[in-house]
Amino acid sequence: MTVFQTIALDAMGGDFGPPVIVPAAAAALTHMPETRFQFFGDERQIKRELDTHPALKNVSEIIHTDKKINSEDKPSVALRNGKDSSMRLAIEAVKEGRADAVVSAGNTGALMALSKLVLKTLPGINRPAIASSFPTLRGQTLMLDLGANLACDEEVLTQFAVLGAVYVRVVKGIANPSVGLLNVGTEEMKGHEELRAASAILSSVEFPGRYHGFIEGDDITKGTVDVVVTDGFTGNIALKTAEGVGKLTAEILRTEFKSTPLAMLGYLLARGGIKRVKDRVDPRKYNGGMFLGLNGICVKSHGGSDLIGTENAILVASDLVRNGYNKRVAYEVEQLMSQESFFSSAVTSA
Amino acid sequence: MTVFQTIALDAMGGDFGPPVIVPAAAAALTHMPETRFQFFGDERQIKRELDTHPALKNVSEIIHTDKKINSEDKPSVALRNGKDSSMRLAIEAVKEGRADAVVSAGNTGALMALSKLVLKTLPGINRPAIASSFPTLRGQTLMLDLGANLACDEEVLTQFAVLGAVYVRVVKGIANPSVGLLNVGTEEMKGHEELRAASAILSSVEFPGRYHGFIEGDDITKGTVDVVVTDGFTGNIALKTAEGVGKLTAEILRTEFKSTPLAMLGYLLARGGIKRVKDRVDPRKYNGGMFLGLNGICVKSHGGSDLIGTENAILVASDLVRNGYNKRVAYEVEQLMSQESFFSSAVTSA
Repeated sequence: MTVFQTIALDAMGGDFGPPVIVPAAAAALTHMPETRFQFFGDERQIKRELDTHPALKNVSEIIHTDKKINSEDKPSVALRNGKDSSMRLAIEAVKEGRADAVVSAGNTGALMALSKLVLKTLPGINRPAIASSFPTLRGQTLMLDLGANLACDEEVLTQFAVLGAVYVRVVKGIANPSVGLLNVGTEEMKGHEELRAASAILSSVEFPGRYHGFIEGDDITKGTVDVVVTDGFTGNIALKTAEGVGKLTAEILRTEFKSTPLAMLGYLLARGGIKRVKDRVDPRKYNGGMFLGLNGICVKSHGGSDLIGTENAILVASDLVRNGYNKRVAYEVEQLMSQESFFSSAVTSA
Repeated sequence: MTVFQTIALDAMGGDFGPPVIVPAAAAALTHMPETRFQFFGDERQIKRELDTHPALKNVSEIIHTDKKINSEDKPSVALRNGKDSSMRLAIEAVKEGRADAVVSAGNTGALMALSKLVLKTLPGINRPAIASSFPTLRGQTLMLDLGANLACDEEVLTQFAVLGAVYVRVVKGIANPSVGLLNVGTEEMKGHEELRAASAILSSVEFPGRYHGFIEGDDITKGTVDVVVTDGFTGNIALKTAEGVGKLTAEILRTEFKSTPLAMLGYLLARGGIKRVKDRVDPRKYNGGMFLGLNGICVKSHGGSDLIGTENAILVASDLVRNGYNKRVAYEVEQLMSQESFFSSAVTSA
């Protein structure tokens, strides 16, 4: 077997640990046969699960540790005490070239802090961003940052535009992706100063996409652009607000469909359609927050992810590896920074 | 007839003008018989509509002007050239005590700029906020600011908490409303500095509500608190993102219900329930962005509002007048500012 990639899994991260993470890896393996896995965590628990998945067991290695990062640990605690934790060891496997990507369902803050410390950012990238795909009226859109950096200056926002555009281009195969800056209006003079400065830079530089301009909150789901760029504070609020509206709608629908016998009958007849609706917006299929801009591939799976969600996060990591995402980003950032207009805009706006 | 209140209507604002605004006033009148109306705008157009609503005509006055603010006018243009516009004249009627509230479906930026200039803010309030109610799993929540102030310091955020809490208390009748600050996490150390400073103030002062602490984006629709306080940038993004998700869900549902004959039959049987879902989240029933904190009542109706939406905006304005909202706010802000802890927190955080 030609080994194309090796994925390091923090087997102890998330609410469920090996009983979900091992079967999810087995499911992912069927989509990417030329893969090896490294499981970091409690050997006994991992082995018990691997024993029921012989095909996976054949291509897997267990790196035992009885230390783990807890979900309530602050990033500072994880940095100080996380030395031999399953999360940190998995990240170090990527750093040392023994693995191509790490996937963890553990504590987001700790994963970001440790992966920044261990992997460092790519040359030319000041700060990594958390990115994820979302369903829209037209297909999907990538949004970043979703919470790694609360405030972002124009240089960081411009780098996010490159990180996002390269992803959509090399992983999603969209030749000339459009990038929008999330704002409270589409006119040039709207919004914070950093947004206007980032807009000026993106309008004048060449980068691996097409700058669309400012977009508003409802443009995210309209699918107005392929990449939505925003600071981590705004991105996190938008993401969680959207999740909340989704849950509210689902709950209201559930109540109303149960309200009369006729509505229940209607529901039964229409349930094929309703299931397809649920499938289209199923958050598990969008699981996998990518930490873009690091010198190594790191994907965060939701802490409560089930098998399908975890499998998806592994596939997201694999897509980044297979498409040589980081090499492409490094190249594009170098191109960006060599442009005179990038510096002149940055200087003018400073 | 005892005249309880007089509502000034910018008859030329919004996409439809008198043909929607006059019938909406007629509908609102049936809910609040002891009201007089002033219509500002083109006399001929207004009169034609009033002629078909004799009960409304009896309690209405037309103040003619052929000037109006256009939907694309910048606030600065409205301030400079809006002198005899229907919008400005309607605001001036409130300023001069001839009317108790103004409702306009015109240009939001112009309405905010003109009402700030003409009405000024209430004593102790630095900046007015745009507030609106939203459906939640538990009922409704009030959110402010929705876009009037892109960046807000801790003093302004604290004032918004008072503006919102008084609204929920006097208009919605909730005795001890809970107030949350929108943030990216609920832990004390999360978020921007202004948020942490505002949280420190709200934790230590007495104000007409109960400070809940930080909330996250999905808490808005969960109904975790009665009042959601945020800066105008974040509020606007959250509002529009939520609108976008609502539209996406509706569109996906529509497509899927049409996808098979069985699904269509199901839809027909369930349509009573589906209609109730739509009613519960019908944005027209939440129309009416209140400009809170001004020395006068001003309500913004959505530019594309139909009769039901416009009627709701008029009722929202009337609710503020009838409940003596502004007097109560003035009193509560005075109480707030007399507290030593407000000043000490503000000084410590400065």
